[in-house]
Amino acid sequence: MNKQQTVTEEIFSIDSINKYASLMTLGNGYLGLRASHEEEYTDQIKGMYAAGIYNKATNNGISEIVNLPDLTAIRIEIDGELFSLLDGEILSYHRELSLLDGQIKREVVWKSRSGAKYQLIFQRFVSKDDLHLVGMKVTVTSLDKQSKLKIVTGIDAQQTNFGNQHLLEENVRVFDERIMQGTFQTSESGHQIAITASCSCTGDADTAFVAKNRQLYTTVTANLPLNEPFILEKLCTIHTSLDDETGLDLETTGVQTLQKKLAEGYDDLLSKSAQKWKEFWDRKQVKITSEHEFDQFALDFALYHIEIMTPAHDERFSVGAKGLTGPGYKGHIFWDTEIFILPHHLFTQPETARKLLRYRYLHLQQAIEKAHQNGYEGALFPWESAFTGVEETPEFAAINIRTGKRQKVASAIAEHHIVADIAFAVVHYYQATHDDEFMKKEGLALLKETSRFWISRACEEDGKLSIQDVIGPDEYTEHINNNAYTNYMAHFNVKQTLNYMKRFKDADESLLAAGEDFLNRLYLPKPGPDNIIPQDDTFLKKPEIDLSKYKMNQGSQGILLDYSRQEVNEMQILKQADVVMLLYLFPDLFSSDVVAENLQYYEEHTIHDSSLSKAIHAIVAARCGEKEEAYRFFKEACLIDLGPNPHSSDEGLHAASLGAIWLATVFGFANVSIVNDRLSIDPKLPTEWTELEFPIIWQGTRLNITITQQKMTILKLSGPDVQLDIRGTAYQVTDKIEVGL
Amino acid sequence: MNKQQTVTEEIFSIDSINKYASLMTLGNGYLGLRASHEEEYTDQIKGMYAAGIYNKATNNGISEIVNLPDLTAIRIEIDGELFSLLDGEILSYHRELSLLDGQIKREVVWKSRSGAKYQLIFQRFVSKDDLHLVGMKVTVTSLDKQSKLKIVTGIDAQQTNFGNQHLLEENVRVFDERIMQGTFQTSESGHQIAITASCSCTGDADTAFVAKNRQLYTTVTANLPLNEPFILEKLCTIHTSLDDETGLDLETTGVQTLQKKLAEGYDDLLSKSAQKWKEFWDRKQVKITSEHEFDQFALDFALYHIEIMTPAHDERFSVGAKGLTGPGYKGHIFWDTEIFILPHHLFTQPETARKLLRYRYLHLQQAIEKAHQNGYEGALFPWESAFTGVEETPEFAAINIRTGKRQKVASAIAEHHIVADIAFAVVHYYQATHDDEFMKKEGLALLKETSRFWISRACEEDGKLSIQDVIGPDEYTEHINNNAYTNYMAHFNVKQTLNYMKRFKDADESLLAAGEDFLNRLYLPKPGPDNIIPQDDTFLKKPEIDLSKYKMNQGSQGILLDYSRQEVNEMQILKQADVVMLLYLFPDLFSSDVVAENLQYYEEHTIHDSSLSKAIHAIVAARCGEKEEAYRFFKEACLIDLGPNPHSSDEGLHAASLGAIWLATVFGFANVSIVNDRLSIDPKLPTEWTELEFPIIWQGTRLNITITQQKMTILKLSGPDVQLDIRGTAYQVTDKIEVGL
Repeated sequence: MNKQQTVTEEIFSIDSINKYASLMTLGNGYLGLRASHEEEYTDQIKGMYAAGIYNKATNNGISEIVNLPDLTAIRIEIDGELFSLLDGEILSYHRELSLLDGQIKREVVWKSRSGAKYQLIFQRFVSKDDLHLVGMKVTVTSLDKQSKLKIVTGIDAQQTNFGNQHLLEENVRVFDERIMQGTFQTSESGHQIAITASCSCTGDADTAFVAKNRQLYTTVTANLPLNEPFILEKLCTIHTSLDDETGLDLETTGVQTLQKKLAEGYDDLLSKSAQKWKEFWDRKQVKITSEHEFDQFALDFALYHIEIMTPAHDERFSVGAKGLTGPGYKGHIFWDTEIFILPHHLFTQPETARKLLRYRYLHLQQAIEKAHQNGYEGALFPWESAFTGVEETPEFAAINIRTGKRQKVASAIAEHHIVADIAFAVVHYYQATHDDEFMKKEGLALLKETSRFWISRACEEDGKLSIQDVIGPDEYTEHINNNAYTNYMAHFNVKQTLNYMKRFKDADESLLAAGEDFLNRLYLPKPGPDNIIPQDDTFLKKPEIDLSKYKMNQGSQGILLDYSRQEVNEMQILKQADVVMLLYLFPDLFSSDVVAENLQYYEEHTIHDSSLSKAIHAIVAARCGEKEEAYRFFKEACLIDLGPNPHSSDEGLHAASLGAIWLATVFGFANVSIVNDRLSIDPKLPTEWTELEFPIIWQGTRLNITITQQKMTILKLSGPDVQLDIRGTAYQVTDKIEVGL
Repeated sequence: MNKQQTVTEEIFSIDSINKYASLMTLGNGYLGLRASHEEEYTDQIKGMYAAGIYNKATNNGISEIVNLPDLTAIRIEIDGELFSLLDGEILSYHRELSLLDGQIKREVVWKSRSGAKYQLIFQRFVSKDDLHLVGMKVTVTSLDKQSKLKIVTGIDAQQTNFGNQHLLEENVRVFDERIMQGTFQTSESGHQIAITASCSCTGDADTAFVAKNRQLYTTVTANLPLNEPFILEKLCTIHTSLDDETGLDLETTGVQTLQKKLAEGYDDLLSKSAQKWKEFWDRKQVKITSEHEFDQFALDFALYHIEIMTPAHDERFSVGAKGLTGPGYKGHIFWDTEIFILPHHLFTQPETARKLLRYRYLHLQQAIEKAHQNGYEGALFPWESAFTGVEETPEFAAINIRTGKRQKVASAIAEHHIVADIAFAVVHYYQATHDDEFMKKEGLALLKETSRFWISRACEEDGKLSIQDVIGPDEYTEHINNNAYTNYMAHFNVKQTLNYMKRFKDADESLLAAGEDFLNRLYLPKPGPDNIIPQDDTFLKKPEIDLSKYKMNQGSQGILLDYSRQEVNEMQILKQADVVMLLYLFPDLFSSDVVAENLQYYEEHTIHDSSLSKAIHAIVAARCGEKEEAYRFFKEACLIDLGPNPHSSDEGLHAASLGAIWLATVFGFANVSIVNDRLSIDPKLPTEWTELEFPIIWQGTRLNITITQQKMTILKLSGPDVQLDIRGTAYQVTDKIEVGL
C-alpha cells in the first residue's frame, strides 16, 4: 500500500453511529460485519451477514439477507457502572479502521459517572485469511484505583432485520465449559448456520454461562488492579450449509475450527489476515498523487469495500446493492453489479467477473420463466434478485402523500434495461479476456436469451419497432416509450449476439433472422435540431420546475415529500440521467458536441437523487475535456458515503457508487475504454493530479499504467504482448512504453 | 380510595428502567402496556399485550403473548438535540403512576448538552372506560429561548418478543392526512390486529408521514416559543379479531372509533377512565391502618394490578403468570390463577371467578386429550396454557452447568397437582356462591374429569394406592412419589367430586365406586414421630446443606449456578414448601402443633426462590399466632416486586405474588376461611396494624368487615342475611354486628 490509510473517527457522536458502522464494515466477501460498538446504543443498526444466506420471513414476502446473531456486543461493568459513552465523560476517543490490515481499533479514556478513569481499547477483525473467522479483543485498564470488572458477551440471536426474524434457534450448547455454540436455521430457505465463540482472558477470572431468550452468553468477573491491563480475546467462527462440504456436521466443524484458532490467538490470526490484505494492496491499489490527499483515500476506501463486498469464493451469489454492509435493499442484487462493480474485477481479477456472470447464467432458467410469465420470450432477469434467482422486488414503496396508501413499485414489471446491462457485461468480459470457453457456453446462452427477450419485447408501429412502457435508469420517469438508454442497449445486445453467434458458428437461423430484422427496424432516438437526444417519446414535452431546492439535498429524495410519484413523472425531473448513462457506455456513439450539449441539458434536470449519478457525470465530463466539472463531480461522488451527511449510509454503503469511484478514475480520468474490441487510453487527468498509477489486466496481460500531466508509462508485468491505442495511435507493449501527452 | 396512592419514581436510573416499566404498567384486562419511556433506551423492554393474542413464532414452538407494535415511542428533538435522560443534565425528575385514576405522569426539567433548559411533561393512560383506548400527551416548554421542535411518533412494528416476531404486516395507511393505521396478523394463530393512532398539536405545526421498515410514523415540526407550552396529544385504539363482532371490519372500526375519541380529547377521555377507577376503589379497596404506610400501598398496588391483569371481559382467556405486564413466562397461565388470583375475585366479584373457571371448562377437551396422550383417563390440564388450551410448557430451560446442554423441563409431564388445584377452585367457587347452575354443568364436568384423572393416575402397591413420579409445587424436587401436597389435593378432589355428584344426583355409579375405592386406599403421608409430614417418600432421607448463602439472594435461583438441577434434587432444598402450601389450603387438617412444627422445619429448608412462597408462609404463621414472623413474611412478600432489587421484575410482575398479598391480608391476618362450607373468621391482626377494613361477598351478600385489635364489625351492604362463624361461634348478620376480640 502507498501509505497507511485509515477510516478515522475522532469524535464519538451518537448521530453518526450508523454511518461509521457502515463505513468501517469489516468483511471478506463471505462475511460482512458492521462496525457497531461493543456497548449498546439506541438506534444502533447491528448487522452481520453471510453472502448468499437469504430468507423470507413470511410466506409471500421477499428474500432478505439475514441478519445473523450478534457477536459484537460486549457489556462492560466496572465497579457496577455500565460502560457507555453516553454516560460519564469521554476524556479521549479515537477509532480507526486500518485499510492496510483490515482491523478496527478504538481507544477510549473514559471517566465513569462516579469519577473513576479507565482506558478501554477495542480491536476487531474479520479474517481475510480464513473466511469464517471473527476476532475481537478488549483491553481494560483502570487508571485510578483497583476495581471489579464484569464482562458479559456471547451469541445474541435476538437480532432481526428491522423486526423480521429469519432464524429459528435450533440448539445452544457450551462445550468444555469454554466454547459457546448456537445453531440456527433460516425459517423458509432452510440454510443452516453454526456460530461458535469463546473468550480467553488474562489472569484469574470467574466465568458462568447463561442461555435465555435467544441469547447464549458468558459472564466474566475479575479483579482489575490499578494500571494492569485486563485483556479479553473473543474468537468466533461462522459456518453455514452453503460452505463446501467438509464431511463433518456444522457443529463439529465450528467447534474444531475454533479450538485450532484458540491455540493461535488473536495477534497471530490478525497477522495472517493482514498479510492477505498486504498482497491485495500490492496487486490492486490505484495510486493518486493529488493536491487533495482525500482522493487517494477515496480510492483506497472504494477498493477496500469492493473487495469485501464481493463473494469471490462462490459463484452462487453476487454483490448486493449495499454489499454486506447493511440491511438496505435487503441485500438484493441489481444491475449495479454488472455495470458499476464488475468492471473493476474484470480489469483486475477477471475470474471474479466471470463468477459474477456465472451467477446470472445459473439463474437463466428463472429469467426465462419470468419472461414467460410476463408474456415475453427469452430471458427477463429480475430487477432485484437474491439466492434463488427469482424476482425479489418489493411490491410497495413509500406512502403516497396524497392518498395515504403505499405506492406500487413498478421496477419488476418495467425496468427491463437490466437484461441488456447483463448482456453488455458479457460482451465486455469477452472483449477483455477472450475467454472462448465462457463465451461459447455461458456467454452465448446469456446473449441469445436476452436477445430473444428484446425481440419479443418490441412493438411494431408503422413498420418501425418501438419498446414501450419501460422505466430507464431514471426511476423518476415511469412507463414511457422508447427510452433512449433502453433502446440503444437493446440494440447493442442484439447486435453483439449476432456478432458472437457468427463468430462461434451458432447456426440458429431463425434467431439470426429475427435479430437482423430487429436491428433494422428498432427506433433509436436521435439528437433533435438542438442536438438534444430525447430521453423518451414524451420527456422533452413535459413542464420543467426549479429543482435548485432539491439539488441542495441530493440523495434525500426530498421531492417525494412535496410531490407524489405520479406528479414527478409528469415533469422533466430526473433522479439520474439516462442519456448521460448512455453516453458513458458508448463513448463513440455521438459527436463530442452532442455529448457535451446533452450532458449540460440533462444535468440541469437531474437531482442526482441516485447514488449512481455523479460518477457517471464525472466520466462523461472528463471525456468532454471539462476538467473542472469532471473533478467536481468526482469529488461529490466520493462524498456519497464519505460526506458529512450523518445518515445517508445508515443502512449500508452504496456499493455501485464505490464501484463508480474506480470507474471514474480509470474510465474517466485515465479514459480507458474498449473501442472496436481494442483497449484505448486517452488520459484526461484533473489539473489537481500530478500522477495516477493503476494496474490493469487486458486479455491475460498484467499492465501497470502511470499517467502524469506530461506522459504515460505502460509497464508490462506479465503475459503476452498487448496491442492498444493511445490517443488514437496504435502501440504494442512488449516490456515498457512511454508516451508523451 | 382511602387517599391518593401513587407508584413513584423520584430518580431516573437506567438500571431500574425495566422494573418501573413493569411496576407502572397500565391496563384494563384487555390491554397491558408497559411503562416504557417515550424516548428510547438500550435494554428497555417494551411491551403492549392484548389478552388472548398468542402466537407461535415457529411451527413446533410454543405460544407467546404477542408483543404488539409500539405506540409509546416519541422522539423529541429540540434545536437538533435529541431528548434523552442519558444525555445533557436532569435538573428535576418525577414520575408517578396514580393508582386512583390510572394515569402515568412524568415531569422532567432537562438541560440539553448545549445548555438550554426545557420542561417536558409526559402523560399516559389506558382507558378503564373504553378497553381499546390508549391516550398520551406530551407538553414541552422551552425555558431559555425560542427553539425549533421536532417530534416523531407513530406505530412501530419492529417490536419482537426477545427476537421472535409474531406479526405479519398486512397494511399501513394514512387516512385524511391525519390518522395512521397499521393492520397485522399473527403468523400462526391468525388473529387480526388493527392499530390506529393520531396526533393533535397546539399551534402551527408541519406534519409528514413515512412508512418504512415496519414503521409508520408522523414527523411534527413546530416553533417552540419561549415559555409557551407545546402540547401534542396522541390517541390510539387497538382492535383485534377476538373483539365482539361490530359488523364492521377492524380497519373501519379502528378509524371510526378514533375519530370519535379525537373529538373528545385527552382530558375528557382520561376523566371517564378515572371515574371507572374511582368506582373500582370504592367497591374493592382493602384499608389498613398500620404503623407502616407501606402496607396500605402494597395492598393498593396489588389490587390495581390484579384488576388490570384480569381479562374480566372475556372468558376465553385467563390470567398469565406475569399478567399483561411483560413477556415473562410468555403470557402463559399456570395454577397461579386458580390458587393465588381467583380467590380475590371470588370474594369481591364472583362473576369474574366464574369466567376464569369457564376458561378451564372451555378447554376440558384439550385436557382430556392430554391425559389420553399421557396414558391416563379424565382430564390432565396443561401445566402452562394459552389460547387453545393445549400444553405450552417449553421443552428446555437453562444450561446445565456440568454438561453444557439445556436441561429438560419436566413440569408438563409431572407437575400434575394443577389438576386438583383447578378442582379446589371449583369447590371454593361453589361454596362461596352456591351457583347451582355452574356446578351442575361446568363444575361437575370439571370435578368428574379431574377425578377420573387421579383415579387412573394412582398405582397400586400392596393394596394401597400411591401417586408416583410427580413434581409438587416445590420444583427443586422432581420425580418423587407420594408428594404430600399432590396426594392430599387429589384426595380432596375426588372426595368433593363424590360429594357434589351425590348432591346433584349424578348417577355415574362406576365413577362413584371407583372414587370411593380411591379414597379408601390412597396413601396420605402422616406426621412422623417428630410431627414432620414427609414432603414425599424420600425427601426426609436426603442430605441437607447450609442454605444461608442462597436465602440471602432469595428469588434469584442462584443455587443453580453452583449445582445442577439433578444435584439440587438429591438434597433437602426447597424452592417453596409443599407442606406449608398444604397446611394453608387445609387449615383444619392437622393439629396446631403439627402445623407450627412443620412450618418451622420446612421453612429452614426453603430458599423461597419461588415468588409464591413468602405470602403463604405469612398466612400459616399468622394462623399459628406467630404474629411477628407472619408480619415479616408479609412484608417480604410485598417486596417481591416492590423491593430494591432493580431486575427481579424486568420481564413482568409476579401476578400470583400480588394475588397472595390479598390472600395474606384476608386469609391470613383477617383469617377468613371456609370451614365445613361455612365462612369462618378468626382475626390474627399484626401488632403493627390498628385497623383492617375490607369488603367481601359471600353467597350473594356484600359485607364490609372492619377489624381492630379490640373488635370486629361486620356490616351487611346488600343481599340476604348471612350465617358465619367468628372464632368458632356462629353469628347471623342481618344488618351489622360487633364482636369483641
